[in-house]
Parts: sequence; C-alpha cells; structure tokens
Amino acid sequence: MSHRLLLLGAGRSASSLIQYLLRYAPQEGWQLTIADVNPAHLAPVLAAHTEYARAIAFDIQNEEQLEELVAQADTVISMLPALFHAVVARACVRNGCHLATASYVNDAIRELDAEAQQAGITLLMECGLDPGLDHMSAMQVIDEVRERGGKLSSFKSYCGGLMAPDSEGENPWKYKFTWNPRNVVLAGQGTAKYLEEGNLRFIPYQQLFARAEELRVPGYGLFEGYANRDSLSYRVPYGLENIPTILRGTLRRPGYCAAWQALVRLGLTDDSGPLGNPATMTWKELICSYLPAVPEPGSSVAELTARHLELAYNSPEMQRLVWLGLFSDKPVGLPNATPAQLLERLLTEKWQLEPTDHDMIVMQHLFEYELNGTHYQRTSSLVVLGDDSTHTAMAKTVGLPLGMAVRRLISGQLVQRGVVIPTHQSLYEPILAELASDYGIRFEEQEMVATRSMLAG
Amino acid sequence: MSHRLLLLGAGRSASSLIQYLLRYAPQEGWQLTIADVNPAHLAPVLAAHTEYARAIAFDIQNEEQLEELVAQADTVISMLPALFHAVVARACVRNGCHLATASYVNDAIRELDAEAQQAGITLLMECGLDPGLDHMSAMQVIDEVRERGGKLSSFKSYCGGLMAPDSEGENPWKYKFTWNPRNVVLAGQGTAKYLEEGNLRFIPYQQLFARAEELRVPGYGLFEGYANRDSLSYRVPYGLENIPTILRGTLRRPGYCAAWQALVRLGLTDDSGPLGNPATMTWKELICSYLPAVPEPGSSVAELTARHLELAYNSPEMQRLVWLGLFSDKPVGLPNATPAQLLERLLTEKWQLEPTDHDMIVMQHLFEYELNGTHYQRTSSLVVLGDDSTHTAMAKTVGLPLGMAVRRLISGQLVQRGVVIPTHQSLYEPILAELASDYGIRFEEQEMVATRSMLAG
Repeated sequence: MSHRLLLLGAGRSASSLIQYLLRYAPQEGWQLTIADVNPAHLAPVLAAHTEYARAIAFDIQNEEQLEELVAQADTVISMLPALFHAVVARACVRNGCHLATASYVNDAIRELDAEAQQAGITLLMECGLDPGLDHMSAMQVIDEVRERGGKLSSFKSYCGGLMAPDSEGENPWKYKFTWNPRNVVLAGQGTAKYLEEGNLRFIPYQQLFARAEELRVPGYGLFEGYANRDSLSYRVPYGLENIPTILRGTLRRPGYCAAWQALVRLGLTDDSGPLGNPATMTWKELICSYLPAVPEPGSSVAELTARHLELAYNSPEMQRLVWLGLFSDKPVGLPNATPAQLLERLLTEKWQLEPTDHDMIVMQHLFEYELNGTHYQRTSSLVVLGDDSTHTAMAKTVGLPLGMAVRRLISGQLVQRGVVIPTHQSLYEPILAELASDYGIRFEEQEMVATRSMLAG
Repeated sequence: MSHRLLLLGAGRSASSLIQYLLRYAPQEGWQLTIADVNPAHLAPVLAAHTEYARAIAFDIQNEEQLEELVAQADTVISMLPALFHAVVARACVRNGCHLATASYVNDAIRELDAEAQQAGITLLMECGLDPGLDHMSAMQVIDEVRERGGKLSSFKSYCGGLMAPDSEGENPWKYKFTWNPRNVVLAGQGTAKYLEEGNLRFIPYQQLFARAEELRVPGYGLFEGYANRDSLSYRVPYGLENIPTILRGTLRRPGYCAAWQALVRLGLTDDSGPLGNPATMTWKELICSYLPAVPEPGSSVAELTARHLELAYNSPEMQRLVWLGLFSDKPVGLPNATPAQLLERLLTEKWQLEPTDHDMIVMQHLFEYELNGTHYQRTSSLVVLGDDSTHTAMAKTVGLPLGMAVRRLISGQLVQRGVVIPTHQSLYEPILAELASDYGIRFEEQEMVATRSMLAG
C-alpha cells in the first residue's frame, strides 16, 4: 500500500526538498500532495511526476481544510513559517500521522510530546540546516570522541548563509539577503550568553558585533563569527551538561561585524517605535538627526559621522556605510517608521540577490578534547555552494536533510516517537552518508595535537 | 441633591487626593465611595467623615461589581494602574458618568471620544503631575506669551521625582524609588526624538544617558536632564505645531546619568530574556561575566570594569557602582532572571525609602520667545517637598491637581465633553491659583532679555 505524504508550503526554500521527494516517491511508494497558497508555480515541476504527485491550493487560515488534508495523510512535512507548526502538529496528533519540519522545537511542540507518544507518532523537528545539519554533524564527532573514551572540553559551532566567492562582487559587505531580511536587521538584540572555561559569559547587544572572532575555513579563507543569543540550550540535547566551553555563532565575511557595529551604535537597528519622520527625509538627513550636534550647513555628514563613531574617514567601516548610501540624498521612503524598518528597506535594495548570483552555506565546528592525556583540537567544516537561483545552497541544505530524515521515518528506520530531533546516530549516520555520497555535501575534518601554548591562546 | 463621587484605587499615591476630597465633600455636597482592593487601611482616614464617605472592597477583575459601582456614581476618579482605564472609561460611557484620571490618553481612551461626547460626559485625563501639572503650568506661560503677541521659538520642559536635600544622605546617586522601580530601570529604551532649531533629533538608548543637559533650579542647585522618548507629541495639544525647538526630559541630580550610562553599557538594563544564572551567583561574578575576558583569579573586578568602561577607578561613576555593591559577594538572589530584573532587585534594596525620608518633585520649563524684535528667555520652576511618608511630594502633586480638576468638573466650571486634558485656561488658571494659595505649590519665574551670544550658547 502506498504511503500518503503531505507537504505543506512550497516556497523558494522548498525547491530541493521537492526534487528529493519526487526522486524517491516512485521507488518508496509515496503518493505526494503538495499544498501551497499559490500552487501554479508547481505545475512545471510536477509535470513528469503526475502518477504520484499533485499540487493543491491551501490556506493555512482554513482550519477545516488543514484537518481534512492531515486526515488523508500518513506523514506531513511542514515548510510553513514556524509560527504555524503548533496548529499543524496538533492536527497530526489528532489524526495519528507523523510530522517533520526544519524548525526549532518550541514550548507548544514540547507540550505535545506525551500525546504524540500515546498516538504512536513522531514529531520530527530541527531537521533542516540550522537547526538540523548542525546537530547531525556535531553529534557525529561528539559521539565518536565519547566512544573512544575522550572528554570534550570545548565546543564552538558557527554557521552562516553567505555569498559564493564568485558572487561577492563589488559589495564591500560581501553579504546579500538569502534569508529573512528582518531577522538579519534585528539579529542579536538582547544579551548573548555562552560558557567559557566554566564561566558564564554575557555580551550585551551594543558590544556583540565588536567582539566577533576570526575563523579560517580551508579553501575559503577568513570569516568572522558573532555569538548567538543562547548557546547554553545546546548542552542538554547534546549530552554536554558539564562542558566548560560552549559557544554558537553566526558567520560573516571579515569586516562585516565592525561595520554592522557602526550601524548599531548609530541607532539604526532599533525597532521599538516609529521616528515621526517624513518619507521624503533623505538618508543624509536621517544620519544628521543622530549626530550629537546639528551640523553646520555645508559640512560633510560622513566626516562628522566618522568623528562621532571614532572611526577614520577612510576606515573599512565608513567605506561600507558610504557604499550603503547613508550619506546620500536618497529618500528613506517610509513615513513614521522605526529605524530598523528604514534600514531593512535600504538593505533590501542594496543586498538584493541577482538572478545569476550563487549563495554559499558555511558551517564550522571547533572541538577540543582530551584522550589518554593528550589534548586534541579538531575542526569540522562544510561549504555548500548554490547551483543556481532555484537550487540555492540554502534550499539544498535545508531541504535535503529534511527529505532524507522523512525517508528514514517512513521506512521505519526511525523508531523513536514523540518529539525528536536528529541527535541520534540512527538518524544522522545515514543522512550524513547520503549527503556526502549523493550530493557532495561533506564535512572536512582537520585534527591536531594541541600544545599548552595553543590552548592558552 | 448630593453628587455621588466614586474613587477607584486608594494606594499610596492617593493619600493627598483623598484628603482633598474629604475636605471638600461636606461643602460641595459629595457622597464619596472609595473602592480599593484592601480597604482596611482607609478606616482611620475616614473615621471622622462617615456622614459623606465610605470605603468598600473592590476587585477590578470583577466586571459586574465595576458596572454596579459606576452605575451608582455621577463622577468616577480612577487611581488604578493605567492599563485598567479603558475598561473603566467604557463603563463610564455606558452609565453616563464623568471620569477623571492622572494617566495619559491612550488609543483606547481616544476611541471613546465621540461616544463620550454623545453621552454628554467628560473623560478628563492627564490631571496629575506629569502628565497634569506640566500641561497646566506650561500652557499658562504659552498662552500668556501668545496673548501679548509673542512668538515661541523654544520650549524645553523637565520633571523628576527625587529626594529632598535633607534626605539625600550618603547615597552618591542622590536618588531613591518614589515611583515604579521597573519603569526607572527600563527608562529610555528605544530612540528618543525631539526637535532642535527645526531639525528632527534622535538619540539611541545606548547614548541617551551620555547626553544629559545641566539645569539650575533657584535655591536647589544643579540638576541634569535626559531626553524623554517622545517630545514631538506635545506639539499638537500645546498648539506649538511649528515650534523649532521642543524637548521633554527627566531630571536627576548631577552624576546620576553618567553612572547610569555605565550600567547601560555593562548591559544590566536589558530585559529581553533570562540569563540562565543561578540565584547564588554573586554580583561580582555577574559583572565578571560581562567583561571582555575572563579575569585572572585574584584580580580586581572593579579595576577591570573601570578599564572596560574606560573610566578612572576613582571616577564618580565607579564610586556609584561600588556603592551599589556591583563588586561584592552579595548573591543576585533570583535564578534565571533578566539583567533588568536583577538590577531592579538590587536597586530596590539600595534605593529604598526610609520612613523619615522626604521626597521632592522638581519641574522646570525653559521658554525662548520673541516679542517686538526682542528675544526673551524665561524659566518657570517648581519644587515641592514631601511632608512625610504619607503626604509625599509625589502624592501631593499627583493628587491635588486631580482633586481640584474634579471639583471644577462637578461644579460645572468645565463644560467641555469627550476626552479632555487640562491645557485650557478655564481649568488651569483656577487650579494653579488654588495650588499656590492653599498649598504653597507655586512656580517661580525668571525672565531675561537674551543677547545673540546667549542664544547661540
């Protein structure tokens, strides 16, 4: 009997997932239904697969339709925005069908654990890139070190969605939006927390981008990483309750963080209230409004800004601000907006992907462990380049692990029920192997014995 | 026939209001009902007034009781927390009775304007200190200058709830909590906006306390003021749509703002998420967690903090931080709290009012205007000292204007219906006169002709 597979949401980032599902549907005996708010774009994709795949129109606000679709499915994959997953998960529990997503477990999902176990279904969460591939690849090393009797003393892990080197172009930030622009503009607000040599460490937002660390990825040069908001929450799921050092961070190309810090210091990432500005206000006028004194007519706003920020006029930071047009006569374009809304609007233009651009996913884990009295340092690094504007590195690294996890779930290789994330060997081993063999998505490892002076550094 | 007056909420700040209402109830023919969650403390206050005043138990969550009480009243005064005013105002509109409060007009109240006018009732808002007395005293000068044909070019206005000089004691902050501690800890978050010589001006939070301005109040020495979040919203109600300079600010004693800026820079005012800390963590350990590098054992956390903040170890800012106990072995006392929650807990101890303390309200308006080709500068300053721990300066300046406004509303001197704030001469003139004659609450004015160099300064 065929297995009825329902995919909810088929936006841009679902392209590689759909390709994967279509590849395996015939041999696995899946009947695939893709439900999207705008299914027209799926017609050409599904044209050669009509025997086992169909697309239908679907509105997540329509609760009746959701219930009906889930009742007719054996397994549901949701690529909807994360806020809808609780509603979908409850429908899955009611109807006794599995759910898989690439989103974080939240409180609403966690509360369904017992019910899902009783219903004999799996709510398989965090199976995309970050969260997803990060868990799988980190746990592979962590489990291997443990099995050999080693003891981890440090785990740092960074991930970033960037531009391939051939697409960085003249943009001095070497960054474009391949993900939600609003999240990028508001990134890091609050207090970042992590552990360093057994000490709780906090970084307030206004210093976060001034404290980025440098990383090197073999073959791809230098990057810098700033700390994510909560690195502590990874200890329990990874079984690292007593690890002295743990840090999660986000990767950018060198120079990004110092320049972003200048935007933070100016006040342009604040989203707490509207400024009362007219839409015709120019960017130069906006920046003027933030300077500690009203400039004399005719003075250089860029020079005054550099002085205010204690930067050299020709510093890399100021070059990036100038390139964005912060000192231009371009109108801000939105009336009575928050600073963050104005900045997002500007960046969405300046950091727009071109159709010929290739994106790049970079992930690097840095481990330190002791085994038989010797200290080791190991790095595990992944670089994935986008094929084109459809099969981006983002779509591949989010969609392929999810598709592969679903394949194991349906085939019965994954026997855990309730809320599950892919930290267990039975799931990550076959997925990492398939990613490497079939898609060339492979972590490169480097290991060396650490001397005392290296550890101190 | 007697007028049925209902006071909702009789907390600490209602003491002077209740005294005023009891003073006038017999001669004005009021029957006063005071409804409070804990009415027991009112018994001694009302003992000599039982012919025309009674206290009853009241729970704002009990909608039926609210409706019943309002139906039996002709005028309602609400001293409840501001978030309850919309519910109370709707009950007043339904039952055709007036409402008076000391809180800001918000969207929910504004929406009731037309209905209130139709019902022939007045929603008299912003009749306390700030908002309240600030409107009244500013409008008295603004209207007077206008009537004489003068043209205002600048209006700055500051207010603060501080300690009387005899109660500042050894506390280097010269500040204690006379109002909501949480609001003091979170003050200024977001972006402050005001106008300066026709230019929109913005100050991001992380610079707000570094840009305080110095003020002098005759007889009371120096103060400093930091900008409030939104100074622009005062233009329309004051009829100052085209004024080039307008700023509203909050007053502190000199040195407070620079030291508070150090707390902001450390990250201790962030309220966006919990730190994952144990309750047993000491303040010194907490501060250590924020330093850019883990200190060597035995090093002075205070010295490292001073270096981190680029302050001298013996600077006035560091002296204030040391006095708070930031470098002590005192436990922070709350597990997994936000930095702002920890700071509030510490300050609530260190800035606690003693029974013998006297508080002080300071308000100062600074006007610049032109009349017949001459430029004038005028300051209008108010200092009110608390009598004791019951009739504080805060209670007097919040409660007396409100009581006086209600007296005019009931006697028919206030004829405006719908949502009203006390910016009109018919209300502010008699209230300011009564405050001065009966309570010695009097603004002192100073005026001088401004020379060009003074204006440039």
